[in-house]
Amino acid sequence: MPLPVACDPWALETLTSYVRIPSVSAQGRGIDESCEFLSRTFAGLGFRVERIATAGHPVLLAERVAPGARRSIVFYNHYDVQPPEPLELWSSPPFETVVRDGRIWGRGVADNKANLIVRLAAVRDLLARRPDLPVTLRFLVEGEEEIGSPNLGAFVATHLHRFRSDLCIWENGARTLDGRLELILGCKGVLHLELALHSLGADQHSSRGAILPSAPWRLVWVLAGLKDADERVRIQGFYDPVRATTPADREVLAQIPFDEAALRAQYGARGWLGGRTGIDLRHRLFCEPAVNINGLTSGYQGKGNKTVLPSSASAKLDVRLVPDQTPEGVRSLLRGHLDRSGFPDVEITHAQGYPPARTPVDHPIIRRVARAAEAATGKTPVPIPMMPASGPMYLFADHMPLVGVGTGNPDSRAHAPDENITVEDFRLGQEVIVHLLEEMAGD
Amino acid sequence: MPLPVACDPWALETLTSYVRIPSVSAQGRGIDESCEFLSRTFAGLGFRVERIATAGHPVLLAERVAPGARRSIVFYNHYDVQPPEPLELWSSPPFETVVRDGRIWGRGVADNKANLIVRLAAVRDLLARRPDLPVTLRFLVEGEEEIGSPNLGAFVATHLHRFRSDLCIWENGARTLDGRLELILGCKGVLHLELALHSLGADQHSSRGAILPSAPWRLVWVLAGLKDADERVRIQGFYDPVRATTPADREVLAQIPFDEAALRAQYGARGWLGGRTGIDLRHRLFCEPAVNINGLTSGYQGKGNKTVLPSSASAKLDVRLVPDQTPEGVRSLLRGHLDRSGFPDVEITHAQGYPPARTPVDHPIIRRVARAAEAATGKTPVPIPMMPASGPMYLFADHMPLVGVGTGNPDSRAHAPDENITVEDFRLGQEVIVHLLEEMAGD
Repeated sequence: MPLPVACDPWALETLTSYVRIPSVSAQGRGIDESCEFLSRTFAGLGFRVERIATAGHPVLLAERVAPGARRSIVFYNHYDVQPPEPLELWSSPPFETVVRDGRIWGRGVADNKANLIVRLAAVRDLLARRPDLPVTLRFLVEGEEEIGSPNLGAFVATHLHRFRSDLCIWENGARTLDGRLELILGCKGVLHLELALHSLGADQHSSRGAILPSAPWRLVWVLAGLKDADERVRIQGFYDPVRATTPADREVLAQIPFDEAALRAQYGARGWLGGRTGIDLRHRLFCEPAVNINGLTSGYQGKGNKTVLPSSASAKLDVRLVPDQTPEGVRSLLRGHLDRSGFPDVEITHAQGYPPARTPVDHPIIRRVARAAEAATGKTPVPIPMMPASGPMYLFADHMPLVGVGTGNPDSRAHAPDENITVEDFRLGQEVIVHLLEEMAGD
Repeated sequence: MPLPVACDPWALETLTSYVRIPSVSAQGRGIDESCEFLSRTFAGLGFRVERIATAGHPVLLAERVAPGARRSIVFYNHYDVQPPEPLELWSSPPFETVVRDGRIWGRGVADNKANLIVRLAAVRDLLARRPDLPVTLRFLVEGEEEIGSPNLGAFVATHLHRFRSDLCIWENGARTLDGRLELILGCKGVLHLELALHSLGADQHSSRGAILPSAPWRLVWVLAGLKDADERVRIQGFYDPVRATTPADREVLAQIPFDEAALRAQYGARGWLGGRTGIDLRHRLFCEPAVNINGLTSGYQGKGNKTVLPSSASAKLDVRLVPDQTPEGVRSLLRGHLDRSGFPDVEITHAQGYPPARTPVDHPIIRRVARAAEAATGKTPVPIPMMPASGPMYLFADHMPLVGVGTGNPDSRAHAPDENITVEDFRLGQEVIVHLLEEMAGD
């Protein structure tokens, strides 16, 4: 395979070996092999590595303590990937790294094997020049991210003291269409739940709907009572814990590239919710909580009509949370709201979720990350206050400043066939970390 | 088969032959055979019979004109029955009439072969004694009731002048648990429809729900705008055509046996809609319109959760109508309501239905029916202002007074295995018609 000009040969070679390991956590494949490969690689760079057992797949903790370190940094990554299926949709074998058309293709390159490799390559590169770099380096690599990190919470609770640092670099990130690095400063939390109503012993002829309680009607009223067409959530106290947006937040929101016309066309939407636009629209996407209906079900859903009065009805919801809302807090407010508003019989089931995670955009250490990103790319980076989606970022962000910066692009196809990153992002990713480690070493 | 003491041998013999014909309209079986059998029977009783072709199964029109008739009466029946399946759940072969435990068993005995036979037996019985009975007798027997009477409207439009009478006796009826004959004076109308919403080109990740329109939320608001928890329909003008309830109506409502505690337990309901009770509860069931949700569907409905923002949502509804509401009128009011309330994009599809049908409880000819019922049973009958369910009764009731009185019982199992009537109801049914014909012949 001819090497692209700008690429670090060690980085591409290491990535190729790493991608070859089919570390599909959902299928329990390649777990040991991944741990062994990474342990060797860390050791080769002078790290002390420990493979720590969990109730699931092991976590690797690698550390290189710098005597007289000015600061410490921890990188969170995961060695597992999504299943490669459907195989027939791949242009090249998923577990072989292929360089073609300015991109690197293979399962896991974007999510998130290349991210780990560029970080290691940056460490290798910089330590070769500055072996006395006054930064303590830590890597935490888990093996269950793609199956929901079921054991990460317990791991963090036990081992936090071993990896807590001045900064956590999250697993991934991307460049915008105009080539600026995103700095992901957190993610919204989420509360998944189901609301279920049972009003009768069995379905009845709908003519009885004149006198019998109707589960679907009651569900409609419950939901309409949660949020009206003004899009304001009506659960008492819902907004109370929400941190106020700062002028610095509004400033970064203004910087986020967001082509409203193009996105609306792509979504096939008539307009944005509540007619918002500009910074107000981005504020809603990146900074505000939301209540979503994922599914509604009741009664007859087949062809034609059926004169049935359904005995039950249910809705699946997700509530997107922002600091300092919590899944438990919102669940408890919702229970109170239902009880007070005449729906004590509505069951809340399948409630689970994550709290939100967020590092302030004007945190001093984030300024160092921004300077590193600008030094590497020549362009002002784009801080994203919170990703609209949710994940277990809070496990780290609750304890240290956190930022996601990485090698993705808008067409990286994470989780899909033909997953890829660009060669340029692979090169840049390494350079960003070199600059960042220098920033961490500075005054 | 030993004859039960009180039974008219001709009636039981004729019913047995009639039940033997497997006249399943859904399967196109026994149609010709039914027409031939009934034509012979009518002719044997001195009727002029015509078999009239329709776009589906033929309609039989039988008439016996009485010179110098005081009044005329038309009986509506159907010769078709529901399919007998599942056969294994029958205690005896469905197309054999079996007398056992004081009941007559067989497919169609309750719905509605025995009803036709007792009417014919009454005519036969009375004419033997009063050949000059001054009442013109008509029978209309269709063959598609069990598949929704798709050609009955066109038939009535063309042939009404040939059977329009002073009174129409509808196909069926029943006795209450305390042995009183129900007089069914009409039925509610119905408008079936589906409300459908499409808000996006495709489903999206639910994190986008913060800024993108949500089809299920909009559906919730549309429905909540149709009816609030106070159970009052909010479509402007919906109640305007509703005829006021008369003191006579309230009097008959008070007479309807309705064991609220037993029924609530049977339905497994915590309470009645809006906390109604007594006459107010019966008024809602028998005299008021209602909007029912038959089904709700949107997004993910499987196990666990899925973070999806559904692109579409829909609801199946039926609106139960009372005089003088019409399906077309309510559909048009609903369209206007949606357009005015910010939901012009909500589609109304699959709209179809029947208008309501109702003969006033204090109509003079209904008093004759009530006297006949009382004379036969020794008990005050129970007028039912309107059945809560719907059917094509309006085709007749719009043109003449109409009442349903028949041989059913609360456990007749129409449409189900082990369909039956009681021997006593079979005897009584004949006697009621004898008395009724005498009433029709009186001053």
